[in-house]
Amino acid sequence: MTDIPATMRALVLHAYDLDGYDSLTLEERRTPRPGKGEVLVRMAASPINPADLAFMHGLYGVRKPLPVVPGVEGCGVVVATGGGLMARRLLGKRVACAAGDGDGAWAEYMVAPALQCAPLPADVGDEQGAMSIVNPYTAWAQITIARQSRMRAIIQTTAAGALGRMVIRLGKRRGVQVINIVRRDSQVKALQAIGADYVLNSEAPDFDAQVRELSRQLNARLAFDSLAGSMTGRLLAAMPPHSRVVVYGGLSMEPIQVTPGDLIFNQRSIEGFYLANWVARQRLLTLLSMQRELRGLTEVTHTEIQLRAPLAAGQRAIATYEAQMSAGKVLLIPGMAPD
Amino acid sequence: MTDIPATMRALVLHAYDLDGYDSLTLEERRTPRPGKGEVLVRMAASPINPADLAFMHGLYGVRKPLPVVPGVEGCGVVVATGGGLMARRLLGKRVACAAGDGDGAWAEYMVAPALQCAPLPADVGDEQGAMSIVNPYTAWAQITIARQSRMRAIIQTTAAGALGRMVIRLGKRRGVQVINIVRRDSQVKALQAIGADYVLNSEAPDFDAQVRELSRQLNARLAFDSLAGSMTGRLLAAMPPHSRVVVYGGLSMEPIQVTPGDLIFNQRSIEGFYLANWVARQRLLTLLSMQRELRGLTEVTHTEIQLRAPLAAGQRAIATYEAQMSAGKVLLIPGMAPD
Repeated sequence: MTDIPATMRALVLHAYDLDGYDSLTLEERRTPRPGKGEVLVRMAASPINPADLAFMHGLYGVRKPLPVVPGVEGCGVVVATGGGLMARRLLGKRVACAAGDGDGAWAEYMVAPALQCAPLPADVGDEQGAMSIVNPYTAWAQITIARQSRMRAIIQTTAAGALGRMVIRLGKRRGVQVINIVRRDSQVKALQAIGADYVLNSEAPDFDAQVRELSRQLNARLAFDSLAGSMTGRLLAAMPPHSRVVVYGGLSMEPIQVTPGDLIFNQRSIEGFYLANWVARQRLLTLLSMQRELRGLTEVTHTEIQLRAPLAAGQRAIATYEAQMSAGKVLLIPGMAPD
Repeated sequence: MTDIPATMRALVLHAYDLDGYDSLTLEERRTPRPGKGEVLVRMAASPINPADLAFMHGLYGVRKPLPVVPGVEGCGVVVATGGGLMARRLLGKRVACAAGDGDGAWAEYMVAPALQCAPLPADVGDEQGAMSIVNPYTAWAQITIARQSRMRAIIQTTAAGALGRMVIRLGKRRGVQVINIVRRDSQVKALQAIGADYVLNSEAPDFDAQVRELSRQLNARLAFDSLAGSMTGRLLAAMPPHSRVVVYGGLSMEPIQVTPGDLIFNQRSIEGFYLANWVARQRLLTLLSMQRELRGLTEVTHTEIQLRAPLAAGQRAIATYEAQMSAGKVLLIPGMAPD
């Protein structure tokens, strides 16, 4: 543990702000120490996820005490442990890790619960490894929910994003057809190019009629919606009776709006999906089996990267990601030299 | 069948109208003839239900071809049948009946499916008999859903209405506590007077905090909401994790509004309830057993009446009901002489 410096650089959030991320600053702070059952990870890379944006807006399920380091996932090498069997077994290993209750991944070092770290195979690089939890688990969960609900077809919004592409590819593997909703014609073409069978542009004047027709044709009675706002209600109104919309994000930044009659008369419903809750409900063996299967699906989970940035360029990195989320992920690389 | 006149008076709706009921007029039209499996009922009384208002606004699950006679339920004597075993057995009997696909109950005569008619016991008068389907079945369904969901406590909006009072009394019988939401202090007192244990006024400044505290104290994770609009989202936000709001009406005339995070992070959900769908999902034996049990619960289902009106006073009757739904039901009495 001699090579662990006393201080580290980290991106630190000082205020939850609906309007932006002005309070996020690069700071020098004390390198954290792992407690029992925890590990200290020297971070190699960490993505900016939509969940991070929601967290910084104060809209996420957890509001951690401020100031706090954001970043829900990343990867790196375990350089110290606070003791405990699981933690000690990870020492020296390269791991993907999800943040715990405290500071997150956008730093040179992160303390993570050993239970939320998984060793990375040698053939998975740091970049793909840094994105190997949130999106792959979510895609897996959504396709699993579809299969458990005996759905042969589902609908998803923001289909051109990294998660959307994963769901398309995993759906193909698992026999679940996907009706993909995007907002630009260029995204229609991009998804068709990776083999998507059904892509609808929500800006088209006959979009609602298209959803109505296609969801009936494929009997798609389950939708995963990351937008909320008016989209949730539009989907619900257009889908067949006995449909449910599962909301897992609020990217539109608007409240969900639904016409009461669409719920009342056709046995439609709306529920939420939160990865942490889904994971908590699974058996440990189910999760281990998921991890093992996902390891063999690197072509399904492979994620495009549009920008790699040092921590010092955090603000610019977030702005780049927000400007076009479907252009690829943005990775924060603590070891990268500032411009 | 000699005493059936060739024509009858009926209230006839000519346009679905969000703003009111101007197109509803009293008309002389041909007395309908029952088809096979149907009966002709000489109507004695028919209530104005919230479902009728929603129907006339065009917001109901069914939009019948216009012009059409509204009125979802009523009671009267079966004076003719179109044949079929069930129908013939009802001939000459006094029945409660629910309207079928065609014209409804606000007329001197209605054709109803024999399967939607139930003979009335001698000790149930025409007035209570006219209201013995929609509200009693709905109260029964809601308490049944609560018990099937293992809820010892539920929340209901518009608790001071006829249905709300039934739910309170049936809940007491069935061991389901009810948190009642009303909009006026006078309604708080009225419900306490009939034995309601928990009554909250939604106009109180600390209403949301009260819902939060009481729903946690009683572990009430199921709400029945007839208002929709902002109330659905307020309830959902205030209720414990794993709660569901069942919307069965849209009396606020506003779209449901929900903050996405309230669904996503706490496994809360929203669904609809529509009596016709619930009935269709029950076994025939279950329904017969419900009818039998409800017959013994006349003190539970007894409904206050604020006004009896002839068909000619239909507009005034509706206006009186809409002005204060919690003051009692308004009954249309075809045999009553106009003022």
